[in-house]
Amino acid sequence: MNPSKIVVSGMRPTGKLHLGHYFGVLKNWLELQNQYRCFFFIADWHALTTEYQDPKILRQACRDILLDWLAAGLDPKRCTIFLQSRVPEHAELHLLLSMLTPISWLERVPSYKELKNELKDRDLSTYGFLGYPLLQTADVAIYNAHLVPVGQDQVAHLELSREVLRRFNHLYGETFVEPQPLLTPSPKVPGLDGRKMSKSYGNAIYLSDDEAAVRKKMGDAVTDPARIRKSDPGNPDICNVFDYHRLFSPPELVSRVNLQCRAAEIGCVEDKKLATENLLAFLRPIQERRRALEADPKRLEEILEAGAAEARKIAQGHLKRVYERMGLC
Amino acid sequence: MNPSKIVVSGMRPTGKLHLGHYFGVLKNWLELQNQYRCFFFIADWHALTTEYQDPKILRQACRDILLDWLAAGLDPKRCTIFLQSRVPEHAELHLLLSMLTPISWLERVPSYKELKNELKDRDLSTYGFLGYPLLQTADVAIYNAHLVPVGQDQVAHLELSREVLRRFNHLYGETFVEPQPLLTPSPKVPGLDGRKMSKSYGNAIYLSDDEAAVRKKMGDAVTDPARIRKSDPGNPDICNVFDYHRLFSPPELVSRVNLQCRAAEIGCVEDKKLATENLLAFLRPIQERRRALEADPKRLEEILEAGAAEARKIAQGHLKRVYERMGLC
Repeated sequence: MNPSKIVVSGMRPTGKLHLGHYFGVLKNWLELQNQYRCFFFIADWHALTTEYQDPKILRQACRDILLDWLAAGLDPKRCTIFLQSRVPEHAELHLLLSMLTPISWLERVPSYKELKNELKDRDLSTYGFLGYPLLQTADVAIYNAHLVPVGQDQVAHLELSREVLRRFNHLYGETFVEPQPLLTPSPKVPGLDGRKMSKSYGNAIYLSDDEAAVRKKMGDAVTDPARIRKSDPGNPDICNVFDYHRLFSPPELVSRVNLQCRAAEIGCVEDKKLATENLLAFLRPIQERRRALEADPKRLEEILEAGAAEARKIAQGHLKRVYERMGLC
Repeated sequence: MNPSKIVVSGMRPTGKLHLGHYFGVLKNWLELQNQYRCFFFIADWHALTTEYQDPKILRQACRDILLDWLAAGLDPKRCTIFLQSRVPEHAELHLLLSMLTPISWLERVPSYKELKNELKDRDLSTYGFLGYPLLQTADVAIYNAHLVPVGQDQVAHLELSREVLRRFNHLYGETFVEPQPLLTPSPKVPGLDGRKMSKSYGNAIYLSDDEAAVRKKMGDAVTDPARIRKSDPGNPDICNVFDYHRLFSPPELVSRVNLQCRAAEIGCVEDKKLATENLLAFLRPIQERRRALEADPKRLEEILEAGAAEARKIAQGHLKRVYERMGLC
């Protein structure tokens, strides 16, 4: 445990989390909370950059994501968990940083044009959408974070943050740490159809899916498409269900299934059944915790309140230093 | 007095105030504080949009402007006086409004390109500078202001605010009043050289100029340039000193000087002397109050603290309603 290193990360509240989120992000957080001083936040303001036309869905989405975090094992005793909008210091630092950030720096963040193209159905030519990498910068800088867990595709965002904070330090004197990317593992978690697991593709297994739903989805999952009959040898390398074995089954079973599938000694139905049992065994304790938490909404509110209070204490201290460095009252 | 109508206005802390500021803005505020529920703020964040490269000057500038306001007669018992940066709710609402504000609306605010051209020596291609009309919108909307005192040249800014708030109301339901411009009188206050009175032209008389400085400046003031000798008849219509008579001298003296100047019965030296005495009589009580306040920095801090506390109370109430309307937690 290195409590002097600060880690900050957030997730947009997009609703219930699926296995892709778990293995891509949440599992890493579970380890980070034991290694560093961590701040994990639900990025409801960020969600507004794209969902401003119908933000009412966000309230439930924030609740769902919090339930999934806690159910998966994020522990408010070991990390600070909060809603971004309850720590207004993020907005204040965002405003201060906006004064010294050239528009061109924001326009060239790769995901800006990409996402604008991707979400062509909404009007994203807004001031807020252009500024979201700067809000991300404030999210991280307000805690003077050393490390930001990122996937390879987010390194450019962090580069913008580092540049903005470097400019601040240059203008007003050393104030901010330049946050470093913490490249975290993200194993392959295919969706049921073999594409990337994603809510919008309808190919996801959610942490909160009940047993019947999991069995149904696994039953419909695509395996090696070339294997028609049980007597055909299969190829686990292109089978989604085998990827699930790798994630959930004990190593002995993974090797056995690998051999038996290639030798046509096990059929897809039986194979899926084995993977499903192990997946269900993985989900069971998460879902038990989720049910207990769902029954105690007061506890959820307490966690959010305590998290925001803790985060604000740190954020206010840093903001004070920022104003001092700038020479403002 | 109509306390149900809310008026909001701010000034950038550019340093000590001169007669142009007094008659163009402050004198109107002195009347407004008796007529409406008024919020007057020192716009230190706005100053950062252009002064971010050297903000250290702002601390003293904020102090100076507050002294001038109070010395001129702004009364913390009759209006709420505060520093913008001590009411972070302005920044929070600015962020929320940014989500629904098209960049093109900001780019077409006339003063955006004008000011960028005017201040060519600094790099104003920043995200913050582009967003300042939106920050102005938040400044006004966070108190749900009905009226904003503006000069004719600021009507376009207010039009942007009205448009943004209308969009908010359209998306989330009636929340904000659309603020109306309150066109306030701004009499002609020429600088000593006949151009607009301005710090940057070096032609200004400050509210805090001492007697010797005022006498010296008035002695150097340009009068009717065509009048060379005392025996030449003068033209008060093109004489800056006559404009000062109009502002400071009793009506009888104004008419007398008008006639005597045209008839070459009074020379510029004597005429200036009369205007100077009346100007000094105007400045004296202001400067006495200023000295008393300067001697009591604790009192200044108390006024700012009480003002921010009062402003935040109102602002937080409105912000809560904004979140409710948007359907956020």
